[in-house]
Amino acid sequence: MSVLDTHEYRAFRRDLHRHPEPAWREFYTTARIVEELRERDLTALHVGPDALATDERLNVPDDEELAEWEDQAREAGADPETLDQLSGGYTGCVAVVERGDGPVVGLRVDIDALPITESESGEHVPAAEGFRSEHEGFMHACGHDAHATMGLGALDAVLDSDFSGTLKVFFQPGEEQVAGGKPMAESGHLDDVDYLYAVHVGLDHPSGEVVCGVEGFLAVRHFLAEFTGEPAHAGARPEQGRNTVQAMAAAVQNLYAIPRHADGPTRVNAGLVGGGTATNIIPEESHIEGELRGQTTELAEYMSEHADRILDSAAEMHDCEVDVSTLGEAPSATSDDALAGLVRESAGDVEGVTNIVDSDDLGGSEDATYLMNRVQEQGGLACYLGVGTDHPGGHHTTDFDVVEDDIAIGIDVIAGAIRRVAETRP
Amino acid sequence: MSVLDTHEYRAFRRDLHRHPEPAWREFYTTARIVEELRERDLTALHVGPDALATDERLNVPDDEELAEWEDQAREAGADPETLDQLSGGYTGCVAVVERGDGPVVGLRVDIDALPITESESGEHVPAAEGFRSEHEGFMHACGHDAHATMGLGALDAVLDSDFSGTLKVFFQPGEEQVAGGKPMAESGHLDDVDYLYAVHVGLDHPSGEVVCGVEGFLAVRHFLAEFTGEPAHAGARPEQGRNTVQAMAAAVQNLYAIPRHADGPTRVNAGLVGGGTATNIIPEESHIEGELRGQTTELAEYMSEHADRILDSAAEMHDCEVDVSTLGEAPSATSDDALAGLVRESAGDVEGVTNIVDSDDLGGSEDATYLMNRVQEQGGLACYLGVGTDHPGGHHTTDFDVVEDDIAIGIDVIAGAIRRVAETRP
Amino acid sequence: MSVLDTHEYRAFRRDLHRHPEPAWREFYTTARIVEELRERDLTALHVGPDALATDERLNVPDDEELAEWEDQAREAGADPETLDQLSGGYTGCVAVVERGDGPVVGLRVDIDALPITESESGEHVPAAEGFRSEHEGFMHACGHDAHATMGLGALDAVLDSDFSGTLKVFFQPGEEQVAGGKPMAESGHLDDVDYLYAVHVGLDHPSGEVVCGVEGFLAVRHFLAEFTGEPAHAGARPEQGRNTVQAMAAAVQNLYAIPRHADGPTRVNAGLVGGGTATNIIPEESHIEGELRGQTTELAEYMSEHADRILDSAAEMHDCEVDVSTLGEAPSATSDDALAGLVRESAGDVEGVTNIVDSDDLGGSEDATYLMNRVQEQGGLACYLGVGTDHPGGHHTTDFDVVEDDIAIGIDVIAGAIRRVAETRP
Amino acid sequence: MSVLDTHEYRAFRRDLHRHPEPAWREFYTTARIVEELRERDLTALHVGPDALATDERLNVPDDEELAEWEDQAREAGADPETLDQLSGGYTGCVAVVERGDGPVVGLRVDIDALPITESESGEHVPAAEGFRSEHEGFMHACGHDAHATMGLGALDAVLDSDFSGTLKVFFQPGEEQVAGGKPMAESGHLDDVDYLYAVHVGLDHPSGEVVCGVEGFLAVRHFLAEFTGEPAHAGARPEQGRNTVQAMAAAVQNLYAIPRHADGPTRVNAGLVGGGTATNIIPEESHIEGELRGQTTELAEYMSEHADRILDSAAEMHDCEVDVSTLGEAPSATSDDALAGLVRESAGDVEGVTNIVDSDDLGGSEDATYLMNRVQEQGGLACYLGVGTDHPGGHHTTDFDVVEDDIAIGIDVIAGAIRRVAETRP
Repeated sequence: MSVLDTHEYRAFRRDLHRHPEPAWREFYTTARIVEELRERDLTALHVGPDALATDERLNVPDDEELAEWEDQAREAGADPETLDQLSGGYTGCVAVVERGDGPVVGLRVDIDALPITESESGEHVPAAEGFRSEHEGFMHACGHDAHATMGLGALDAVLDSDFSGTLKVFFQPGEEQVAGGKPMAESGHLDDVDYLYAVHVGLDHPSGEVVCGVEGFLAVRHFLAEFTGEPAHAGARPEQGRNTVQAMAAAVQNLYAIPRHADGPTRVNAGLVGGGTATNIIPEESHIEGELRGQTTELAEYMSEHADRILDSAAEMHDCEVDVSTLGEAPSATSDDALAGLVRESAGDVEGVTNIVDSDDLGGSEDATYLMNRVQEQGGLACYLGVGTDHPGGHHTTDFDVVEDDIAIGIDVIAGAIRRVAETRP
Repeated sequence: MSVLDTHEYRAFRRDLHRHPEPAWREFYTTARIVEELRERDLTALHVGPDALATDERLNVPDDEELAEWEDQAREAGADPETLDQLSGGYTGCVAVVERGDGPVVGLRVDIDALPITESESGEHVPAAEGFRSEHEGFMHACGHDAHATMGLGALDAVLDSDFSGTLKVFFQPGEEQVAGGKPMAESGHLDDVDYLYAVHVGLDHPSGEVVCGVEGFLAVRHFLAEFTGEPAHAGARPEQGRNTVQAMAAAVQNLYAIPRHADGPTRVNAGLVGGGTATNIIPEESHIEGELRGQTTELAEYMSEHADRILDSAAEMHDCEVDVSTLGEAPSATSDDALAGLVRESAGDVEGVTNIVDSDDLGGSEDATYLMNRVQEQGGLACYLGVGTDHPGGHHTTDFDVVEDDIAIGIDVIAGAIRRVAETRP
Repeated sequence: MSVLDTHEYRAFRRDLHRHPEPAWREFYTTARIVEELRERDLTALHVGPDALATDERLNVPDDEELAEWEDQAREAGADPETLDQLSGGYTGCVAVVERGDGPVVGLRVDIDALPITESESGEHVPAAEGFRSEHEGFMHACGHDAHATMGLGALDAVLDSDFSGTLKVFFQPGEEQVAGGKPMAESGHLDDVDYLYAVHVGLDHPSGEVVCGVEGFLAVRHFLAEFTGEPAHAGARPEQGRNTVQAMAAAVQNLYAIPRHADGPTRVNAGLVGGGTATNIIPEESHIEGELRGQTTELAEYMSEHADRILDSAAEMHDCEVDVSTLGEAPSATSDDALAGLVRESAGDVEGVTNIVDSDDLGGSEDATYLMNRVQEQGGLACYLGVGTDHPGGHHTTDFDVVEDDIAIGIDVIAGAIRRVAETRP
Repeated sequence: MSVLDTHEYRAFRRDLHRHPEPAWREFYTTARIVEELRERDLTALHVGPDALATDERLNVPDDEELAEWEDQAREAGADPETLDQLSGGYTGCVAVVERGDGPVVGLRVDIDALPITESESGEHVPAAEGFRSEHEGFMHACGHDAHATMGLGALDAVLDSDFSGTLKVFFQPGEEQVAGGKPMAESGHLDDVDYLYAVHVGLDHPSGEVVCGVEGFLAVRHFLAEFTGEPAHAGARPEQGRNTVQAMAAAVQNLYAIPRHADGPTRVNAGLVGGGTATNIIPEESHIEGELRGQTTELAEYMSEHADRILDSAAEMHDCEVDVSTLGEAPSATSDDALAGLVRESAGDVEGVTNIVDSDDLGGSEDATYLMNRVQEQGGLACYLGVGTDHPGGHHTTDFDVVEDDIAIGIDVIAGAIRRVAETRP
């Protein structure tokens, strides 16, 4: 019998997997986590609005959509009282355990899912074993169900140990849209954290491999530019239109042409664009949903300043208006060697770990960086570690899955590192 | 009792109005027209594929969609045998009456509807009097239900007269997408037509006004450009993408910049554009649905040649492919004065006509021009006449409607003009 | 002996031809005209600053260049006192003759030359007969030497007649750059003019042909956009540059894409562009010299408003500045039928006139329109007439020349029309 | 008395400084070097066409310009026989000394100058001491006069030592345009070179500092794109033009938007652009002179492939032609640690060296890389070293100058490194 089954972590993970929920709609997920946490001997449990700087939430769906997801969670059996707390899209929670003298150690796990339709293939374990997504069109395709489980497991393992100090586990919503990191980072719960770990499964590392300190977080901003002009009959009165497709096209051409920066890599993408209503109408509305990245936070800001100016002047160029909003955002960050070293030590003791890698580049973005930066700015240390798993499909694909026993490895590595932190105060 | 009621034209028009059908989906409409025509003493009736150069149909929906509309027509009570003839989207028909020696005179009316949701307002007569569209999202918002009725009525009136010659009434599908004119023009049924009339209601002319010879048809081409590239992770591997949004934007910028032409007005519009799947994916698919126009057929071809080259090279510029298809097309045309003169004479005799206008500019496009050109190229004459009506909303708006008594005026004007053609052979 | 020789017009024309001078540099030309005029019995002669609204001059060269041309005129024998009056680039003059009661009739002729190197071919009459341009790189390639001569000749002919009224002859500088019309139109000397003629030779009409009333003047604006940014090493620090070539390219792309206007033809051209200093430097300076036109003054203004906005926002888009100045400008205008009718009458009496054309389109721009508009706005009439001549090369080419005897025809036609105006006061 | 004076290196350097010559026009420079070399006891001296793979020369001026520079060199006293050898722009030379058994060691120095007007300030030593450029508009503003002197000095120093082996000194033309490296690299003279040094003064390193192994050479391609279209009158017949300014602008917009590459930095610059002839003529000719760079040769090729495609399709988009030529090119390269180590050892022994830096990034481009790559591909080693000097103005500025005594330091460091190579064969 696997460690995973002992504590019913497997069942818990599969329950979350069956109920994938995207940003600010993690009603069932949060309620289930809270339900589990209430069974533990916690010093405090901050739920929903108490776990977030609520004004900092980005890209929150409208009330109607929130209500639908909340209803769905209720029907799936989520605790009504907890749901009342989360109502309005205030998802996520923070568990706190105080255990004598010692440092405050944090662990951040994310809990949200993706708008991807899960595979029905017999070779896809969740489909074969009956825990495929019940929310059609959504899927845990990046392992956040495993992350939530690791958060719970690591909490248990630390409680079971002679850990002395305070442990805070951050169950963060909205990572996929880089929308949840900032509100949690600014919730106040990070303010006394001396050491912070964050964790991710997979990342193209096989089962048995552990990455002690992940690097290469690109700072990122997701933006939505909505252009508004004036329609007109394209045959009879073209001059009466104010053409948003022309504005949008001018913006696209020039966004990709933002000067490269000598300080490091930058990125720009107009990933989703659209506009217009009919071939014979000058298009009065258009939009660009895109992203801007940089190796450092400064580089992402450089891109963002240029992009804002380009979007504004492209609109002005065609006598249109543009409203540019930020849908999500995350800074860059680095893992502290001292904490990564303790991961290495911990991993060396865990059965099943067959390879330990000091560092690897993420090559993408993550909003755990908000929490890491918060701790580091206060003089603390932070580290993002990777737990390998043989995932059949790539991240964010319809066939993504994790090897469940690797969750147990993750729990042990994290718990070991946390205990070492309390002991050594690096 | 109105003339319109005598022949049940009002009921016929309202029946069509309740069943608006867009291009190549005019199953119920054609079947109802055929049903009426079969009650007349015709020399010949060419239905569906027999009324069209079938290879020339543009923008035909896929089989699934055609089948849905055919089923819907069947359920609404359309004659199954007729539907079998139309199956596959071969809609429209041509009615032929031979009545002794004399010229062959044609009348072209169009029968299709628009993808517009009809008003439910109590001030909108079809809603108030119970003949609002039963095909939600579609509507006779340009009066083609009145046109079909005029076709039937004029046929009856000519049959009731001492007309000597041949009359052909062309019930043409797919005008709104300028997709049905060419296949009907090249069906062979126009080849012996000496004189052709086409008719339109409204056009911002009030009830009681008749426009003898409409001019100003802009030649037009509707096109769809579909760009295909290669997706890639915009953060991790931007260079592996082949970016269709960049290609699309380059095309848009340069399409609007096709040089103006000294020979006359030209038009271009990228009316509907879109592309991409997610902010962090280099967009692999994009499209432009647009139109190109010119005062003359040559000018529209000038625009079209430039557009094709721009679309191809914009794709090539970003290492993408593009497939450019023509969704609809119509040439320019002019109304012959001799036929317009007979409309003037006829209108002078019709009760209810309060104002006669020699000519006015359409300022848009129409594919009756294909039929007009066909006749004129053979040495015949053609004329497009307008029948005013107080339409509450503009053409192609949710509140468009016609004054039904003006249909009777149209019938009388057309029938009078046709009789005069046969008498005078201008 | 030709009429042309009688009055030494031929010698005068050849003298001007040998000394072609562009806008605001017509020192020799004006001085020679003034010299001739002083020999006539004039009521008044307004020279240089007295003939112009001096603040309205556009595109005036810098002092150094003006001084060079003034010196050159002095060396060529121009009257020093007149040159002193013209100093600073105040060229052109207005001759006034009052002869009893009657209307005030104006005649406008232009006097400037083009920056074109004149042909040295033996087939080119000025080269063969020794009156080729002595200002290398400049040339009377549009017949303004003939226009000045016609102005003088028509003045003489009117003085020799029983003309009763006032005649004003406007010798206008700077037409080729559409820079001189406005300052002369607003000089005050037009304010009492009841009837105005302007004249042009050639225009692809052969010797013996007269065009009574020219139409089709495109309103025009010449502009210069100068972009300023910031240089940077393109390899080492691309992000430190503010790239004017990017700004210029964005402007060009969007200038040509200004929406077509349903009210009539418009034009745009970025005819001369440039920028940058070296391949490895982000280009800090760029410029566009271009033009905007419209069939009407309103249409040209429409183009101009769009262009200004596009130029500004293109600069802003790349964090650059742009300075947009107007180098020249002219409105549209029409010829009044009543005056054109008198040209027809006059031409009918002139020997050598073999064909009379009522009207033809210029298809270009002219700033006589400023003077024509001025008169018409005050309730007067204006007319622009054409005097055909077999010109071997096209206008503005190195081989352009006029048949000198056609100048005599022009003199007679104009003088006859002016006399008829005084007699009939149309 | 300085070492520099002993051998008259100072006079030699000042002579070259007075006669700065750009790529393929180094007639005086090469002749003077050859004159000096002929006084040495060389095994062989390959001059002009014998020192180059002549077909590989890029961006060679036309015959007229070459002849002017050759004449100027002759007048300045260059040896006529040597000039005959160089005629046609075959500049540069290779000196060979065989001294017993041992490896073949190469030293590459470049000899060309820049199109910069030298400062006349009294604070600029060459101006103050009378050896300012005599070729107005050209200047040794990057220290290649010092490089040539170091080449000569190091040759002497090696000859004076107990060096055993073969020494080849490559006096390379055309580095500033990255035009001379390839023809010298492929001349055959590198084919037996086992070890190669190249050297540069300054690079923002102060007098007394030595950089053992320079890195960070950006691979580069200079290109010239010449667009050809068709002129037309922009007012009368805009549609008859084929507009190269539109093509050029489309190219510029899209060149800067070539996707960033995850493998490393890339660069693009349209540094010099121009087009058109007059505001009212559709511009028939335009050009872009620009550059493409990458951290590695592969990255520069990536940029180059995209640029070629963009230039071609931008021309095609506006129905124009484009001719794209390469004006200069250089790959990336790295310095071998083993050779850099010997520089460190050598520098440690040289008086005046106060600081030794292992490595620094050039942050620009250099075509010594062709020679370095050639040697390394054959299994040899190569190293690019830097000799600091307090240069008052930056490289490529009007005030650039070197401290002459630092040339002596350079000679000693290089000669010491070469001797150590022969001894240790690393």
